Amino acid sequence: MKFSSALLSESVDQFAKLPGIGKKTALRTILYLLQKNPQLAKDLSAILVKAVEEINECQKCHNLSDHQICGICTDKGRDQSVLCLVENIRDVMAIEDTGQFRGVYHILGGVISPIDGIGPDKLNIESLLQRVETEEIREIIMAVSPTIEGETTMYFITQQLRNKNVKVSIIARGVSFGGELEYADELTLGRSISGRQPYLLAETV
Amino acid sequence: MKFSSALLSESVDQFAKLPGIGKKTALRTILYLLQKNPQLAKDLSAILVKAVEEINECQKCHNLSDHQICGICTDKGRDQSVLCLVENIRDVMAIEDTGQFRGVYHILGGVISPIDGIGPDKLNIESLLQRVETEEIREIIMAVSPTIEGETTMYFITQQLRNKNVKVSIIARGVSFGGELEYADELTLGRSISGRQPYLLAETV
Repeated sequence: MKFSSALLSESVDQFAKLPGIGKKTALRTILYLLQKNPQLAKDLSAILVKAVEEINECQKCHNLSDHQICGICTDKGRDQSVLCLVENIRDVMAIEDTGQFRGVYHILGGVISPIDGIGPDKLNIESLLQRVETEEIREIIMAVSPTIEGETTMYFITQQLRNKNVKVSIIARGVSFGGELEYADELTLGRSISGRQPYLLAETV
Repeated sequence: MKFSSALLSESVDQFAKLPGIGKKTALRTILYLLQKNPQLAKDLSAILVKAVEEINECQKCHNLSDHQICGICTDKGRDQSVLCLVENIRDVMAIEDTGQFRGVYHILGGVISPIDGIGPDKLNIESLLQRVETEEIREIIMAVSPTIEGETTMYFITQQLRNKNVKVSIIARGVSFGGELEYADELTLGRSISGRQPYLLAETV
């Protein structure tokens, strides 16, 4: 692409460094900002710089927060003795959106994946064990993705938690609500049969 | 979506105002910037503000430029008497990428589209007529998209240029190179037959 403006060219180059953004999308976006919405360019720039400089990682759960400790960890209305273990902040948001969980979180920051060079030391496992020692944690609910790496991670963490006085549970895995059984993959369907549970009338939706 | 940080929430809101960006993409992008590449957030912000403040519209052709007059208009090596009429700056870049044109441009800024409230007065038509009066323009090549709005715009402009001492031409329309005839749409194929040209051996690729 030949640019008539060096500044335009540089803006497009920088914008195209964002994940999932190609040169054409970057050009369209920058032209939109220049020609239709210069105010948005200024607002976006200001908030990006502010966000990068001021957003902290919560010292307890590693969630992103405007303070040293995040709003979930400081919420007296939540059960601080039940800890949900997740991979990343998007998982926290997904679980919060369900409105079904009133405990607190611990964000691992990923899963063990030797092929990507991510060992247990790169994850927030040490701080999890410290929390188990220092806080009064009754239960850890593992809500890590049921992939091979996720399962490995949960197995590793469960090993580390042995002999600690804490109950370790895992979120239910099985066929999705609203999904057709015939389209469920073999592994999920098979596991959902071997992991079947007593049918309680009160639980039906 | 429930955010643990007000700054994060605001960043995502601002980013999602960009065209074609939804909330989920915005969140993924902002998290990438915060956690993986804070420097890019700063660089991008700086260049965006600079671009918005410093990029001008070329006073002759309405292209974007770092100066009052763009590099194409000031290029002595280009034929200033042949003017290519295009809708927007992306069309200029597309034509420049072909390397087939050594004249200059005039950017309309859109096409006549009453349904979108765009009349001839919203386009750079007046300045085109002024250029025809004041500059020594020999030929105007109309390279506007062959849509209904584009055709209307070209018809309107041709009417305005009647009785001016300037040759008006239009880029060739027809079947695409490398395309299969059977997949060309009826209108294009029909027009390419009615607009057939003498076959010159020298022109074959």
